[in-house]
Amino acid sequence: MQAEIITIGDEILIGQVVDTNSAFIAKELNKIGVSVYQITSVQDNKSHILKSLKEAEDNADIIIVTGGLGPTKDDITKHTIAEYFNDILVQNEAVLKNIEALWEKYIKQSLSQVNIDQALIPSKSKALMNKFGSAPGMWIEKQEKTFVSLPGVPFEMRALMQNEVLPRLQDKYELPFILHKTLLTYGLGESMLAARIETWEDNLPNYIKLAYLPNLGKVRLRLSAKGNDKEKITKEVNNQIKAIFPLIQDIFVGFEDEESSIEQKIGKQLTQLGKTVSVAESCTGGLIAERITANAGASAYFKGGIVSYATQAKTDVLGISNALIEKHSVVSTQIAEAMAKAVRKLFKTDYAIAVTGNAGPTKGDSDADIGTVCIAIVSKKHIYSQEFHLGNHRVKVINKAVNKAFEMLREEI
Amino acid sequence: MQAEIITIGDEILIGQVVDTNSAFIAKELNKIGVSVYQITSVQDNKSHILKSLKEAEDNADIIIVTGGLGPTKDDITKHTIAEYFNDILVQNEAVLKNIEALWEKYIKQSLSQVNIDQALIPSKSKALMNKFGSAPGMWIEKQEKTFVSLPGVPFEMRALMQNEVLPRLQDKYELPFILHKTLLTYGLGESMLAARIETWEDNLPNYIKLAYLPNLGKVRLRLSAKGNDKEKITKEVNNQIKAIFPLIQDIFVGFEDEESSIEQKIGKQLTQLGKTVSVAESCTGGLIAERITANAGASAYFKGGIVSYATQAKTDVLGISNALIEKHSVVSTQIAEAMAKAVRKLFKTDYAIAVTGNAGPTKGDSDADIGTVCIAIVSKKHIYSQEFHLGNHRVKVINKAVNKAFEMLREEI
Repeated sequence: MQAEIITIGDEILIGQVVDTNSAFIAKELNKIGVSVYQITSVQDNKSHILKSLKEAEDNADIIIVTGGLGPTKDDITKHTIAEYFNDILVQNEAVLKNIEALWEKYIKQSLSQVNIDQALIPSKSKALMNKFGSAPGMWIEKQEKTFVSLPGVPFEMRALMQNEVLPRLQDKYELPFILHKTLLTYGLGESMLAARIETWEDNLPNYIKLAYLPNLGKVRLRLSAKGNDKEKITKEVNNQIKAIFPLIQDIFVGFEDEESSIEQKIGKQLTQLGKTVSVAESCTGGLIAERITANAGASAYFKGGIVSYATQAKTDVLGISNALIEKHSVVSTQIAEAMAKAVRKLFKTDYAIAVTGNAGPTKGDSDADIGTVCIAIVSKKHIYSQEFHLGNHRVKVINKAVNKAFEMLREEI
Repeated sequence: MQAEIITIGDEILIGQVVDTNSAFIAKELNKIGVSVYQITSVQDNKSHILKSLKEAEDNADIIIVTGGLGPTKDDITKHTIAEYFNDILVQNEAVLKNIEALWEKYIKQSLSQVNIDQALIPSKSKALMNKFGSAPGMWIEKQEKTFVSLPGVPFEMRALMQNEVLPRLQDKYELPFILHKTLLTYGLGESMLAARIETWEDNLPNYIKLAYLPNLGKVRLRLSAKGNDKEKITKEVNNQIKAIFPLIQDIFVGFEDEESSIEQKIGKQLTQLGKTVSVAESCTGGLIAERITANAGASAYFKGGIVSYATQAKTDVLGISNALIEKHSVVSTQIAEAMAKAVRKLFKTDYAIAVTGNAGPTKGDSDADIGTVCIAIVSKKHIYSQEFHLGNHRVKVINKAVNKAFEMLREEI
């Protein structure tokens, strides 16, 4: 069972917007056993949309289209889909009621004609009710193939995918099982890793595919398998992982959970343990706190943090003495430890993370080389710090430092 | 002049990775006058890549391919491109020297055969030197058409686009001028905005295209124009913007600069004025600090911030009295003002931002409705605060609050 995703909108083709919808849809489809053959982004242009629908119909069983369903003149998806199926648009009463209810609740103004027209859908389609906006999703079957059209606003699209599209696809098709397992490795380049695991890779059964994904000092190794026998596939993938472990134990840092990031895992652990954490950040500038608090429920374990970006802030706010800074330099494991201790005390938490470093592009307040980052983790009993050299690319340095800090905290917990 | 972007990699089609490369390439191409006809993401599969190359050649003048150039077995782009052009791979000495230099500087180990093989490129291609990795870019001309193959690692691809691909395209083709101008509006729905500017929209010259981009309480209005007469196009777009202003003056909040975000503009202003800022955040959890410090040079004006996520942190770290919190509730303009004053004093800055609110999904420490956010801005002379109700979608609430805080700070400056 193959799907094609078509995203419609000039904003994607001029680079004004990154297409995050396709990644979400692809991931959700994979979870229910549907592979994605191709993702195609096309212009708000009738003939281009018609052409891509035809090509997608030739390639795939399920075609999911997003975008171009708004009430304004640049939105032409609905008319174009009707034309593709030689169909006309008819008013759908349930959709109109939904729009009226949304307007009464949120907009508190009477409906204009363009809003009412949002209830027009192709007569051959089934409406998928959008709880968050006036554009309904549409479901059209053509023999064994299924076409779905969804609005491009991400949270509207997501709700429709999860509540309407995925359950209907699972009802309609008998779907295989797809399994992806990703191992995170750190500290060895792609080619050296490949050389090291070559024999293992060559002996993989042909229904298990291996991919290397290098990024920011890490190489992710992804095993992908697909088939009807869920138990057999799961067992074989797990066996292969067992077989690779001895080869990569020095560089293996964990699995990439499709569902949860390292900070989500830390959050779960801390919640279970009833423990709390605080953060003192310098070069990561709030990103650690931001990644922790991006998760609902973070207030159970995250008390807060300090971004002491300027050296002066480290003395004024964290109370670190100028003498200590002069002795060790502001980017040092000693200062990282002092920051961690200070923030843990300020926020009265069980654990604290501190990061001090220089992400570049210039040296700023410190003499440390660009890319030097010191991270400290402190708990009631332990204090632990480490110095890293993370290259000279600002964004990479910041992100590597954040990941490293989370890894260190996770080990400590 | 039309381009097609082809991104190769199963990681995109299973939703493991969001394709940010295409957006970058599309934006850069637009800047030099090349429109992007289509973006296509395909599997690491030879026949699929060959098919997409053929289709792209039919549709576009410039074909830019990314991904699949690594040294491991799942990387098949180079061989596939050679097959597409009936070509063979030959060793390129300059590329090999580049790889040797990179290995000597960073890896400090001898080259393995797979690393040496990275210097193999199709004999008909010109190598584009990659300063950050072992995979070279490749440039192949076929009559008037140009094919470019780039590595998928984002910072390698970006450097190659900017240093090699864009200058060569400008040399080879006579390119038109493309102009995009985006107006940000806030507080009016897409359909109501469209109704309000309908007459203006209908009278736009046919070479100026209008798009509506609704997102998180904002509607962006994008005017796009393309042609050979840069001066005429710029003048006409500016005239149209002058004409729309009276219609949207109550909801217009600024232009979306293709180059700089609101926090970058604030950074520029503060740097010029020699002023500094600090931040006290609650529900935004460090995102304001993170967005400020994502910009190189932030240390000139950003002293630091406090993430006082728990109510207790507001009293312990910011020194806000329990009595004040009990009187006004932790989510109130009074507490926002107290936080702003406290953080400004702690970090000794000219300006301070404070945000307190409840982003949901549960009520947490506060009685305030989910989506209630209070923001305060304080400077030496002024203190100003406002209460917002930003809906009940956690991510939306957080992002809207951050944007609102920056808008308020910008006004104050």
